[in-house]
Amino acid sequence: MTISMHSASVPVYLKMLSNLSAWLDKAEAHAVGKKFEPAVYLQLRLAPDMLPFVRQVQMACDAAKFGVARVAGIEAPKFEDKETSLAELKARIAATLEFVGSVPAAQLDGRESAPVSIPMRNREPMQFDGENYQRHFALPNFFFHVTTAYAILRHNGVDLGKRDFLGG
Amino acid sequence: MTISMHSASVPVYLKMLSNLSAWLDKAEAHAVGKKFEPAVYLQLRLAPDMLPFVRQVQMACDAAKFGVARVAGIEAPKFEDKETSLAELKARIAATLEFVGSVPAAQLDGRESAPVSIPMRNREPMQFDGENYQRHFALPNFFFHVTTAYAILRHNGVDLGKRDFLGG
Repeated sequence: MTISMHSASVPVYLKMLSNLSAWLDKAEAHAVGKKFEPAVYLQLRLAPDMLPFVRQVQMACDAAKFGVARVAGIEAPKFEDKETSLAELKARIAATLEFVGSVPAAQLDGRESAPVSIPMRNREPMQFDGENYQRHFALPNFFFHVTTAYAILRHNGVDLGKRDFLGG
Repeated sequence: MTISMHSASVPVYLKMLSNLSAWLDKAEAHAVGKKFEPAVYLQLRLAPDMLPFVRQVQMACDAAKFGVARVAGIEAPKFEDKETSLAELKARIAATLEFVGSVPAAQLDGRESAPVSIPMRNREPMQFDGENYQRHFALPNFFFHVTTAYAILRHNGVDLGKRDFLGG
């Protein structure tokens, strides 16, 4: 049984997004214990020219969403970036999990050579085949935002470790 | 042409480690411009109970090294964790790139169901099959350390962005 486009991506998105949701629970507990509003986390960032926590979580979700939609060549659901609380971010993660988990393997497997075009803000779209898009853009970009979200929480004292990062 | 254990991992390790090496060049340039010793970066960390930059880079290298060695069922070269400069960290990355790039696809492909056992410090070894080790441990762990290294540099003012993270 060899690996496939689906098996190398969807379970990874599902697991890491579930982990991210669990970190939000720990972040909330930390805030309650320290008596500050959990919504404070949303605006925390690691550098003035890096995006804040709320954007890192939204972008992690979109990275997974687009990761599967673009390989499959299907429309991705639109999620408004309007979350203002940890609870709303958890709902965003849950909606993303539902979409990502709904894409059947048959829509991803065999798409290694499919053309994938990524719109860019200030330049020409990036062109990939499915395999290169997934291994050199979608998954790294996903891990970037998930790990940066984790790092913001750790930098701000939330009790998380590698086991939380990797999940059970 | 379907993806494979090798194609989903080795090019990813090689590309991201090369990117990491380029970030070290930018970090050095930043230090020179700001007139501080580049070696200062090595002890910077995002939280007191997170590992410093030097360890993040060493662990990124080892994550790639063990990522391929454990799937292939071969011995990994031992690299002493003795680096005290950015130049030495670049050499560590180069040595890691050489090893990872030397493992032929035939030693990784077909190892999806091979047993992989990860020694743990305070508990029983973790047991995986090759596919699950690669997608749920090796690659996420690798991205954790690479991204954390990136985050430490960004937090400390080095001029890097997503294009640097993903590479050209």
